[in-house]
Amino acid sequence: MPETKVKKGEDFNEWYNEIVELAELCDKRYPIKGMNIWRPYGWKLMNNVDSLIRDEMIKTNHQEVCFPLLIPESFFKKEEEHIEGFGKEVFWVTHAGLNPLEERWLLRPTSETAMYPIFSLWVRSHMDLPLKTFQIVNTFRYETKQTRAFIRVREIHFFEAHTCHHDFERAEHQIKEDMEIANRLLTKLCLPYVFSKRPDWDKFAGAYYTISIDVLMPSGRTLQIGSIHQYRDNFARPYEISYETEKGTHSFCHQTTYGMSERLLGALIGVHGDNKGLIIPPEVAPLQVVIIPIIFKGKEQGVLQACQNIHEKLLQQGVRSHFDYREITPGNKYYDWELKGVPLRIEIGPKDIEKNELTTVRRDIGKKTSVPLKDAQAVIQKELDSLEKTLYENAEKLLKDNIHTVSTIEEAKKKTGIITLPWCGHKDCALEIENVLEGNTLGEPIENAGCTGQCPVCGLPAKTWMRYAKSY
Amino acid sequence: MPETKVKKGEDFNEWYNEIVELAELCDKRYPIKGMNIWRPYGWKLMNNVDSLIRDEMIKTNHQEVCFPLLIPESFFKKEEEHIEGFGKEVFWVTHAGLNPLEERWLLRPTSETAMYPIFSLWVRSHMDLPLKTFQIVNTFRYETKQTRAFIRVREIHFFEAHTCHHDFERAEHQIKEDMEIANRLLTKLCLPYVFSKRPDWDKFAGAYYTISIDVLMPSGRTLQIGSIHQYRDNFARPYEISYETEKGTHSFCHQTTYGMSERLLGALIGVHGDNKGLIIPPEVAPLQVVIIPIIFKGKEQGVLQACQNIHEKLLQQGVRSHFDYREITPGNKYYDWELKGVPLRIEIGPKDIEKNELTTVRRDIGKKTSVPLKDAQAVIQKELDSLEKTLYENAEKLLKDNIHTVSTIEEAKKKTGIITLPWCGHKDCALEIENVLEGNTLGEPIENAGCTGQCPVCGLPAKTWMRYAKSY
Repeated sequence: MPETKVKKGEDFNEWYNEIVELAELCDKRYPIKGMNIWRPYGWKLMNNVDSLIRDEMIKTNHQEVCFPLLIPESFFKKEEEHIEGFGKEVFWVTHAGLNPLEERWLLRPTSETAMYPIFSLWVRSHMDLPLKTFQIVNTFRYETKQTRAFIRVREIHFFEAHTCHHDFERAEHQIKEDMEIANRLLTKLCLPYVFSKRPDWDKFAGAYYTISIDVLMPSGRTLQIGSIHQYRDNFARPYEISYETEKGTHSFCHQTTYGMSERLLGALIGVHGDNKGLIIPPEVAPLQVVIIPIIFKGKEQGVLQACQNIHEKLLQQGVRSHFDYREITPGNKYYDWELKGVPLRIEIGPKDIEKNELTTVRRDIGKKTSVPLKDAQAVIQKELDSLEKTLYENAEKLLKDNIHTVSTIEEAKKKTGIITLPWCGHKDCALEIENVLEGNTLGEPIENAGCTGQCPVCGLPAKTWMRYAKSY
Repeated sequence: MPETKVKKGEDFNEWYNEIVELAELCDKRYPIKGMNIWRPYGWKLMNNVDSLIRDEMIKTNHQEVCFPLLIPESFFKKEEEHIEGFGKEVFWVTHAGLNPLEERWLLRPTSETAMYPIFSLWVRSHMDLPLKTFQIVNTFRYETKQTRAFIRVREIHFFEAHTCHHDFERAEHQIKEDMEIANRLLTKLCLPYVFSKRPDWDKFAGAYYTISIDVLMPSGRTLQIGSIHQYRDNFARPYEISYETEKGTHSFCHQTTYGMSERLLGALIGVHGDNKGLIIPPEVAPLQVVIIPIIFKGKEQGVLQACQNIHEKLLQQGVRSHFDYREITPGNKYYDWELKGVPLRIEIGPKDIEKNELTTVRRDIGKKTSVPLKDAQAVIQKELDSLEKTLYENAEKLLKDNIHTVSTIEEAKKKTGIITLPWCGHKDCALEIENVLEGNTLGEPIENAGCTGQCPVCGLPAKTWMRYAKSY
């Protein structure tokens, strides 16, 4: 089989850049840097991921809304840290037709400042709480660093949940629910991850604390695919989101947000793909099974009919099956569908017909299996489940092999991936480690077990573990 | 039952404004005029309409894409008529962070100028044709007229199909397919409509011709809810969308587009609603059936259990059912769900339990029916079908009663709604009629039968019929 020009193991970043276009996920030729075109296959994949998110949101009683894209500058400026954090990253609309606007509007980089003035109208009484909303929209950030499809773009396909609660404790409970949601979702995408509590100097602008969700890419760099924020009443005060308690007093709400983006696709491509192309977890694969008739000369009615039969049965079973009856060689079809990462291929040729069989070929390990037709549906489902398991295990091994707990900088320098070191709690020491490792502070492990070591920079007793990594 | 403050028959426009907020479809308190917030109920309704559109697109082999929102000014300016038509209606992004952009970008008012430079890369050979794509996105137009929820807004939820074909004839065939799609969709929404070929001076900027799809609102005004355009090669030439023919020569593509917007919701609200609220056609109703237990004092386990049973059966049957067990009076529940236009209400009280019955109440005609429990599922489906039929027939009567073919201006002045007059083909005569009737030229009926009369303005022999109406 043909392979990608660049090998994943040799130059991961170039391999990634090649694969997203070869597999027709996106077209990067749009003239605005970092604004790519979603091609049909990529958009279907993204929509399938969105559907999983939407299902999780509905199960947990979130309601879907859609707020305007444009935010008046005055709305945006109400929370000081927020404007400081985002002010340099936003696009400004200044003119309508031939006229300058009275007030500038910005394209949402995230929707706190669009939503919260309205939340203050929606929340009046303790009866209105909790308010749990989400939206799936495009957001905009003026990235100045090098862009990369799905990983660093300027128009971002984005999921954001925003909630309001009676008090800090109930907001904390929401954060726990968000972590459970993230876990269920990422398990379906076969993506093991780490939760880290970001250091104070690198949390979301305006947040009380931020939990980042990071996936390890095969390049050894981490990719932050989402984050969960506890705002306390930091936004509720300037935006006046308060409620009347049962006793008749007034309190400010405590808020949380949970965001994820098209980076989920970036992680999925990078972690699972190989030199033949994508490998897409069955849960979100636009096509789960492709059926290819093996006919080299002329048409073989029996073969086509057998393909059609199993195709129809699979569709009835709810499997996303595709019967590829194009008049090109089977080899060309293999190439196409391997590139696109369809988890399972079914081949039916004259010999299979004679034996009342079909052949399944796993996309991940290439394993061929002859299956009696009568068992086909059950075996296909089993192979899909088994592939999902294998994808997860491989990704888990990648993560485990590249997450290291050490106690000195010398040891840390010999490792790649995610490095955990004791930390005294001083920003300067963390920045020094960032500097030496040429990486970033990811944050404290949230399951932070007592750390009894000493800070490898200043030698003071450690207060906690801290993770570092090179990241995208 | 309580009713809206403003009556539909007395002041349709005010009734409309009141109902969209009372039914919690949208919140109009966002500080940018014409940019409203989609509330959960409204967004679900819109998504259900989108799903119908998406199904139609997939059935007809269109592929879903998503192009960037922002368009560089240079892309936009390639087709002269287009920039002239839209130049005054677009929002401009001029700054990123603190820096002015080298080239201004505009927010798409429609996506021709974003897509077509890329189509010229996608289409190379006759084998690449037809190219049939669509997207469902938000678009932006700087409306200066009075805004109205779903009808005249500045951020517009928009469907747009864009196709490329070998030649004019095949593009014409696409237009026929689009008209069939529109017909199937609007039938499901219980919205009869008229197709009109717009006059040359009022077609889409850059089109060869435009077919508008108009619905008649109870106010007597028409609402254009969509349009279908034949571009011929008007865009293909400046955007260089050409292909190599089988003979090895090169030809420009012929293109079509088909667009519809959230105005579909506006039509649905306006045509079907009454003084109690919305009436939503079952095909797109977020909830098709609401089940209300009739218990005034304390809990009656038998009633709640019976409600739960029928609720589960309906869900299994694929009916979007909701069991409203809130602890408020049945009357308050009736009020809520009538406002929200749920097509069918089911009541179960102690007396129904005794008789092994339940009661259905139609939202449109208020008819109450006692139904033996064993027949409930079948009867409920029949009532939903019957309601759909009634909605369509009422809307059809409204349209038929308000579409008039006359031969003189004197007669025309006595009529309301859509007025069809003979036309000589001269713009001035149509503008004179617009002036006298204080309306707009809708266009020629596309099923234009031979018109033998004479122009009511200049007296010359008529070339065709022409429709006029007051419109939104």
